[in-house]
Amino acid sequence: MSLSKVSTLIFDIYGTVVDWRATIAEEGRALGQDKGLPDIDWEAFANAWRAGYQPAMERVRTGQQPWTTNDTLQRERLDEIAIEFGIGVLSESEKDAFNQVWHRLKPWPDSIAGLTRLKTKFTIGTLSNGSFFLLANMAKHSGLPWDFLLSGDNVRHFKPDPETYLGAVEMFGGDAGTVMLVAAHNDDLEAARSFGLKTAFIARPTEYGPDQKTDLKAEDDWDVIADSIEGVADALGV
Amino acid sequence: MSLSKVSTLIFDIYGTVVDWRATIAEEGRALGQDKGLPDIDWEAFANAWRAGYQPAMERVRTGQQPWTTNDTLQRERLDEIAIEFGIGVLSESEKDAFNQVWHRLKPWPDSIAGLTRLKTKFTIGTLSNGSFFLLANMAKHSGLPWDFLLSGDNVRHFKPDPETYLGAVEMFGGDAGTVMLVAAHNDDLEAARSFGLKTAFIARPTEYGPDQKTDLKAEDDWDVIADSIEGVADALGV
Repeated sequence: MSLSKVSTLIFDIYGTVVDWRATIAEEGRALGQDKGLPDIDWEAFANAWRAGYQPAMERVRTGQQPWTTNDTLQRERLDEIAIEFGIGVLSESEKDAFNQVWHRLKPWPDSIAGLTRLKTKFTIGTLSNGSFFLLANMAKHSGLPWDFLLSGDNVRHFKPDPETYLGAVEMFGGDAGTVMLVAAHNDDLEAARSFGLKTAFIARPTEYGPDQKTDLKAEDDWDVIADSIEGVADALGV
Repeated sequence: MSLSKVSTLIFDIYGTVVDWRATIAEEGRALGQDKGLPDIDWEAFANAWRAGYQPAMERVRTGQQPWTTNDTLQRERLDEIAIEFGIGVLSESEKDAFNQVWHRLKPWPDSIAGLTRLKTKFTIGTLSNGSFFLLANMAKHSGLPWDFLLSGDNVRHFKPDPETYLGAVEMFGGDAGTVMLVAAHNDDLEAARSFGLKTAFIARPTEYGPDQKTDLKAEDDWDVIADSIEGVADALGV
């Protein structure tokens, strides 16, 4: 079958492997108690923080802003929303520390078991817009068993810029058909497929919370369609 | 102490972590039997293959040759020495297959135990002129427990070009004092130190065989001086 050549799996991270919303809300709630902050809707805060992500990366993609790693973009976004959400009282160093929550995002319940299975047959790694440092720290913190890390940092481009997918393919010898992107986002897979990579979709219908409207299901005939990383392992016969 | 900031260890690979000479000789000997080749001094062959490495990289470093990954340079070198060593009878595909021996190099006896200890306290990875693909395959084949891989491929430069060391530092947030290079070669450490990285030397006095003349001992006051990766773990208090 057409997937028999696949030897390397590259994973989108935010939403696909880790639950950024729950982690940020949980750490935010703890921070609020610790600092005596007023009642804050930390789930809404998490969504607002994440909502700044695409516009910030778009400024870099279009050249309005020189290459800037996501750690910095996320820190800038925290300043943008601090007043609105009532955390403007935090000091700069407290905000720096809170920004590190992105380095501690927790895996979905199926992630580690699924990755551990996949690692027995495939070379597994990241292809994320999150910083390389973030990916390394997250793996250590959360026990994600990657064989390698690839980040937008490596090529100074964010997905879906071609350099990201093609850079990953180049690292594994140049044959796009040997590399499969695993992601919870149809647009990420669409870009990867356009460059010849194989594709696996994982439905994460609550990534953005109960009212999520996008990426509820596969919107194309991706090579694998599953609802967990364990499901990807099942589909790939591991 | 000055090493208390170190959180990331990057390892040179050939000679430092793996015994390229013994692996190539062993696989060469098996190939010779399999193909009915005449008696060949496979240790001398291994040294000759490796001896083409620096001149080939130097052509790339100086711009005489555009960026070329080491898999290709090693394959070209194999053609150069094939007749001299009596393996000219191998077909192109047999030589392609033999070239993959570099993806299967075996660790020194202390490597996996030492890395496993170091991984409990540090983020550990490669900084090698070997290709990214090679590093990934070698890790899978030989059970090297890396957290991440960095190769000359990532920056399209070979060590000791500054881009290699500085690229690694950039991936970990930009503070060179948090990154330590572990290597069996004084010149590699000298370059790393010149860019502010911390340094650990491992004596591998038989990397090139019993008559080795270089890198028999530390030639500067490197931050750590040891005779194995376990020794580095001892020195770093793991």
